[in-house]
Amino acid sequence: MPQIPTITDINEATERIKPYVHRTPVLQSSWFNDQTGAELFFKCENFQKVGAFKFRGACNAIKKLPKHDGKKGIVTHSSGNHAQAVALAAKLNGYKATIVMPKNAPKVKVEAVKGYEAEIVFCESTIDAREETAQNIIRETGATFIHPYNHPDVIAGQGTSAKELLEEIPELDAIFTPVGGGGLMSGTLLSAKAINSKIKVFGVEPELADDALRSMKSGKVEPVLRTDTIADGLRTSLGELTFEIIQSHIDNIVTVSEASIIRDMRNVWERMKIIIEPSSAVPVAAIMDNKVQVEGLKVGIILTGGNVDLDTFKW
Amino acid sequence: MPQIPTITDINEATERIKPYVHRTPVLQSSWFNDQTGAELFFKCENFQKVGAFKFRGACNAIKKLPKHDGKKGIVTHSSGNHAQAVALAAKLNGYKATIVMPKNAPKVKVEAVKGYEAEIVFCESTIDAREETAQNIIRETGATFIHPYNHPDVIAGQGTSAKELLEEIPELDAIFTPVGGGGLMSGTLLSAKAINSKIKVFGVEPELADDALRSMKSGKVEPVLRTDTIADGLRTSLGELTFEIIQSHIDNIVTVSEASIIRDMRNVWERMKIIIEPSSAVPVAAIMDNKVQVEGLKVGIILTGGNVDLDTFKW
Repeated sequence: MPQIPTITDINEATERIKPYVHRTPVLQSSWFNDQTGAELFFKCENFQKVGAFKFRGACNAIKKLPKHDGKKGIVTHSSGNHAQAVALAAKLNGYKATIVMPKNAPKVKVEAVKGYEAEIVFCESTIDAREETAQNIIRETGATFIHPYNHPDVIAGQGTSAKELLEEIPELDAIFTPVGGGGLMSGTLLSAKAINSKIKVFGVEPELADDALRSMKSGKVEPVLRTDTIADGLRTSLGELTFEIIQSHIDNIVTVSEASIIRDMRNVWERMKIIIEPSSAVPVAAIMDNKVQVEGLKVGIILTGGNVDLDTFKW
Repeated sequence: MPQIPTITDINEATERIKPYVHRTPVLQSSWFNDQTGAELFFKCENFQKVGAFKFRGACNAIKKLPKHDGKKGIVTHSSGNHAQAVALAAKLNGYKATIVMPKNAPKVKVEAVKGYEAEIVFCESTIDAREETAQNIIRETGATFIHPYNHPDVIAGQGTSAKELLEEIPELDAIFTPVGGGGLMSGTLLSAKAINSKIKVFGVEPELADDALRSMKSGKVEPVLRTDTIADGLRTSLGELTFEIIQSHIDNIVTVSEASIIRDMRNVWERMKIIIEPSSAVPVAAIMDNKVQVEGLKVGIILTGGNVDLDTFKW
């Protein structure tokens, strides 16, 4: 098993990726504060390069690679945002990227990967199909695999978002993030708990993809059973590494319904005038549905991305 | 004719409204910079209270009212954002607001006005019908009329946005705003030209509502001939006061097509992950269509608002 990153790794990642990433803004909303009785601070990774926090982890992992490895190419599999992140980070380093994507990935994400000049190989949407396809490419080309979440450098990179948030709002009582593969969740836990051991950190999943909650109960990594949640970034299971970190540090994991995700995605669009993708609305929904008591607290929420297919809007 | 505001009026407005307005962020976009060859700075009034710059002017005008006048109530007519702005500013001062709205005003804007506890009186969408309806209410109640743009305190309030923008990016070569009734345009001209006499200031209109351009050519206020542009905030003609200010100070007025407005509204949503209403996309479209040469320049754009009916999105 790869080693668990430390706060030193996260600090080094911060310096390593600083020239490439946006320091994303932290927004507030009086409407959401009124609704919840809490003071909410939204860390806007939807404004990050490629439209999602994923660029932080991919950029850190690819920047750290020895040049002779990078020259053989980069491979990954992803339902979308990690794909764009690897494609752009590889391009910035002059490496070739090959991205394995599930056939049902949103069109907007496929187009974006193409825009970063990566090669795309489509496969079935199961985790097995993705991994097998990626392994075949590695065998043929000697390319380096950048796992979307079960990778210490990726986790350290994702941890830089919570670090920035806590630099800006050090008095936070709690931080909420969604849980998909657990990369952001792990990075956030390592970062936040090292900076302030008293801070509470909560993970939120769609009810339809509650694998992390089930994994916490059973004590081992449980698979996602369905891939039909609207929160397309959260359709993956935990990895061994992210599971270990989450199990050791997390305060609680809660779940939210599809209806609540859609409701609060729309609330964020209407009230805050920013575009978030469904996965970003998952922690917002947990707070709005009172799944964790936050009244009177200062709460950080990481809005993970803003890549939505806008074709259905009547332009 | 009311007096033209000075930079002193704008500075006083800034202090007067400071406790109530958001100091809106200035965003950049590498995609738009790549497309235009310019460095663009987007002043995000879509994040302003009530979702539009209009709150600045209404807040300034209503705050300045003697209490015995305010107590008789506030009246205005507006296609939407000024209505919300007056409703909220009146509410914050404990005054009653009555808003005359055209029957075809977007539902989201009508709902928002109701949310601020104002009374709504609907009328036909012509400027004559609006003014007559408002005058009837004034005659009956003694309420004070806050004109949406042809009012020195409103213009001074709108000028505070460009002032903030220039405080943040003093080296701007040019500023673009849309032109509807001319309140923002006038405030921006007075503010920008007083702060830096060399700065170029451009107004942009939809081709379907090119009344300001025609007014500049004829030397008198020309009416809007159609009210069907998608840019619903720009369906009004200039006033005598705004016309005089614009005529004296503006560098140029250009027009853009409906297709370009829609294209760049979508580009801003997709590339910047922020929600803007069609009127906000009007100056963006002028730059993207090269209606004014901006290559190599630092250019400010005031994104005027973000109030869009999201019902047509497939949630």
